[in-house]
Amino acid sequence: MNGKKVTSITSKHDNLTQWYTDVCLKAELMDYAQAKGFIVYRPDGYALWEEIQNYLNKKFKGYGVRNVYLPSLIPMSLLNKEKEHVKGFAPECAVVTKGGNKTLAEEMVVRPTSETLFCDHFKDILHSYNDLPIKYNQWCSVVRWEKTTRPFLRGAEFLWQEGHTLHESEVEAREFALTILRTYNEMGRDLLAIPFVCGRKPASERFAGAKDTYTIEALMPDCQALQCGTTHYLGTSFSEAYNIRYSNKENKIAYPHYTSWGVSTRLLGALIMVHGDDEGLVLPPYIAPIQVTIIPIRPDADKAILDNCKKLKSQLEEHGIRVTLDNSNKTPGWKFAQYEMKGIPLRIELGPKDLEKKQFMLTRRFDGAKIAISLDAPVDAVIDQLQEIHKGMYNKALQFLNEHIHEVHSFDELGEVITKSQGFAKIMSSNDPEEEQKIKEAFNATPRVIPFDQSPFSDTDPITGKKAEDVVFYARAY
Amino acid sequence: MNGKKVTSITSKHDNLTQWYTDVCLKAELMDYAQAKGFIVYRPDGYALWEEIQNYLNKKFKGYGVRNVYLPSLIPMSLLNKEKEHVKGFAPECAVVTKGGNKTLAEEMVVRPTSETLFCDHFKDILHSYNDLPIKYNQWCSVVRWEKTTRPFLRGAEFLWQEGHTLHESEVEAREFALTILRTYNEMGRDLLAIPFVCGRKPASERFAGAKDTYTIEALMPDCQALQCGTTHYLGTSFSEAYNIRYSNKENKIAYPHYTSWGVSTRLLGALIMVHGDDEGLVLPPYIAPIQVTIIPIRPDADKAILDNCKKLKSQLEEHGIRVTLDNSNKTPGWKFAQYEMKGIPLRIELGPKDLEKKQFMLTRRFDGAKIAISLDAPVDAVIDQLQEIHKGMYNKALQFLNEHIHEVHSFDELGEVITKSQGFAKIMSSNDPEEEQKIKEAFNATPRVIPFDQSPFSDTDPITGKKAEDVVFYARAY
Repeated sequence: MNGKKVTSITSKHDNLTQWYTDVCLKAELMDYAQAKGFIVYRPDGYALWEEIQNYLNKKFKGYGVRNVYLPSLIPMSLLNKEKEHVKGFAPECAVVTKGGNKTLAEEMVVRPTSETLFCDHFKDILHSYNDLPIKYNQWCSVVRWEKTTRPFLRGAEFLWQEGHTLHESEVEAREFALTILRTYNEMGRDLLAIPFVCGRKPASERFAGAKDTYTIEALMPDCQALQCGTTHYLGTSFSEAYNIRYSNKENKIAYPHYTSWGVSTRLLGALIMVHGDDEGLVLPPYIAPIQVTIIPIRPDADKAILDNCKKLKSQLEEHGIRVTLDNSNKTPGWKFAQYEMKGIPLRIELGPKDLEKKQFMLTRRFDGAKIAISLDAPVDAVIDQLQEIHKGMYNKALQFLNEHIHEVHSFDELGEVITKSQGFAKIMSSNDPEEEQKIKEAFNATPRVIPFDQSPFSDTDPITGKKAEDVVFYARAY
Repeated sequence: MNGKKVTSITSKHDNLTQWYTDVCLKAELMDYAQAKGFIVYRPDGYALWEEIQNYLNKKFKGYGVRNVYLPSLIPMSLLNKEKEHVKGFAPECAVVTKGGNKTLAEEMVVRPTSETLFCDHFKDILHSYNDLPIKYNQWCSVVRWEKTTRPFLRGAEFLWQEGHTLHESEVEAREFALTILRTYNEMGRDLLAIPFVCGRKPASERFAGAKDTYTIEALMPDCQALQCGTTHYLGTSFSEAYNIRYSNKENKIAYPHYTSWGVSTRLLGALIMVHGDDEGLVLPPYIAPIQVTIIPIRPDADKAILDNCKKLKSQLEEHGIRVTLDNSNKTPGWKFAQYEMKGIPLRIELGPKDLEKKQFMLTRRFDGAKIAISLDAPVDAVIDQLQEIHKGMYNKALQFLNEHIHEVHSFDELGEVITKSQGFAKIMSSNDPEEEQKIKEAFNATPRVIPFDQSPFSDTDPITGKKAEDVVFYARAY
């Protein structure tokens, strides 16, 4: 179809940054708020976040995690109790100094993360080993005073979930942090159609106060890495700093082991960048708030056209498929371009010729493929298509990721992968801080992840000449 | 059963205030946070809010309302644009003056409500009458620097939904504000088992900047009124102040008519106070996150006891009933008291004697009634009981409300109703500000609502001697 484009956007290949902003705005996912770095999550953007919430709430519930809500403001003295933690967050805090027309006796911080609040609550509710494990989660927004901001990827305020749990042992706590990481990874595979590299963070990249940070890293089309979610094993240092204690089975005082973990609306940024194209957003079917849009063609030619469209809509809805029917008086070309921009996975057209053949035309947003489907058995065909599109999108993204992981054997080879934007540079590393610093200064790249899937390919770190400890992936990062 | 009480609470009749705090804490609905006026919404409290969210999200969706998220911080200049509005809210704002270790060029307010942010967004997205109506809703927290605070009822921070809509005409906007009010009222009837008095607010009690405020008012056991939700018709003054304009059907510039509306976690306060008793919380069945708890009695006596309990659990779950089975090694007495405190609507016991009779015992939290149910057909019986309990709880609350509305014919009669805590004083009023002031000073009562159901009983305001305009309900209020 020669659908005239509703609005034109920059080519993804020519200028990814501008293309990204264009899609965010023109697919009506967000808008800029008046205050710098703050955005409006518009209905089509927020609905994606709601699908993520639905997916995760079900999974979390299965693990016995319960939702709670803690204050949005943190007294300064409470934030200051864990030294590593406050060092990490204090520089980016928004500070409330006045309340009810008076200067506050103690300044408060708009939460940048809530470990300190959870600790303060945990100390009141934990008494005995019978109370453990405690598994809480909170859906909220956090504020971080970032200098450079981009919609969804980095902002003064973003939406997230933050899980906070207490356990009797290190083993149990680490296992739980890994269970959640696996869940995030499955969400990538099953909902977002985004493959991640899963692993640990090197010490320099850990969460402020964590003993270990686990991460899911995605690769964007410009070959920069995007950290999409993290889970942390915090040991007992927070418990000790905030005096969270309990009587263990031996009736002795013990400090519980703490985990925290979160994903944020940054996932929407990954979704847009990984799948989008020059016509706009491309949504994987299972996260798409609208999966199918039905457009009657020349509905005035025959009353049966609209009737069949309506029937089709209810048939699909009966099977849980999310459908809209657009019978507005806009031209089909306008509608096609509009729904392409919005990334709806499947478009159905039904016109006089289709009616004659007792069929409708189905167009896949992802690859533009067109398929004629019989009106006699539409539901299975649509369900199959949604499944196939999801697989196709995931596999395409996986192929891109796999093609952009390069084994490197020297400082210069690493530099080439990074500076030529070829993706992850995979190196045998001695995890030497000076080496990290040298690479950062030379190429502006950081060690993103020590993947769980190690497969070492040498015994020696080629840069330091020391014994190699881990396979490490370096990249530039968002 | 001679269940030993887990924890004792103050008698509701002796000291409602202390009883209320006891229930909030001991039913583990909330805890106090370190900062004055802020609370932790604990899992059992937050789950009630999630049930309200589920109920309303479905209704709102049916009206074409879409969820969005706007910033939590408002630049001071933006707040200041609508004069009546800022006058109402400025005194209770929390103010951010520093961000990222620097003093901000412009101070920002932690949102006390978001009309000003919505206006700033609406001005960017509204162009033509084709874009109308716009119907948005946001689930978030708001911060208001209150002097005296009580859990759920009044706090420095609470959770709410705030709806914001734009319409072509006053009629349409007012109708929509009334549709939402009706929905709130139905939520009271069908979910919370709380009857409300629905009506308009007198001018003195309107939302800051509103042309009309509609309200649902509940009566608490101490005969003080609790405003449980409001919807506002804001006219075009916000549109004009924030320059929200569009081309109407005649291709002329027009200002849209604005509505906003919200309910908050204050509803949990109403729920606790209206239904609770000296054993703790009493939850109406449809909002109860757990509707039935099954307690095996002497499960070691016969393996069939636990087997039957498990079977019962899955049978009930299959029909969408929310059930737990407590087979922990705590005593039945402890469990009974615990689940009474938590307000679970139905308790099921199944022991050796019950097994012999092929039955189980069902105890209703609401009135303590015990009923033997055959193991052959448990599901319908439980469904019927949930329905009956809901009806019973609603009718009891409705009877209390109806018995505490008193027609008064003089200043002194009104004073007697108020000072003797007899409920709403229903008076024929001329809506005279001086009259309101006089009543307020004498009895600390305010005109809570001008009910839609008017039934005037005199032509004259007995206090001013002027022509009566409306039937008005006076009360002391939370």
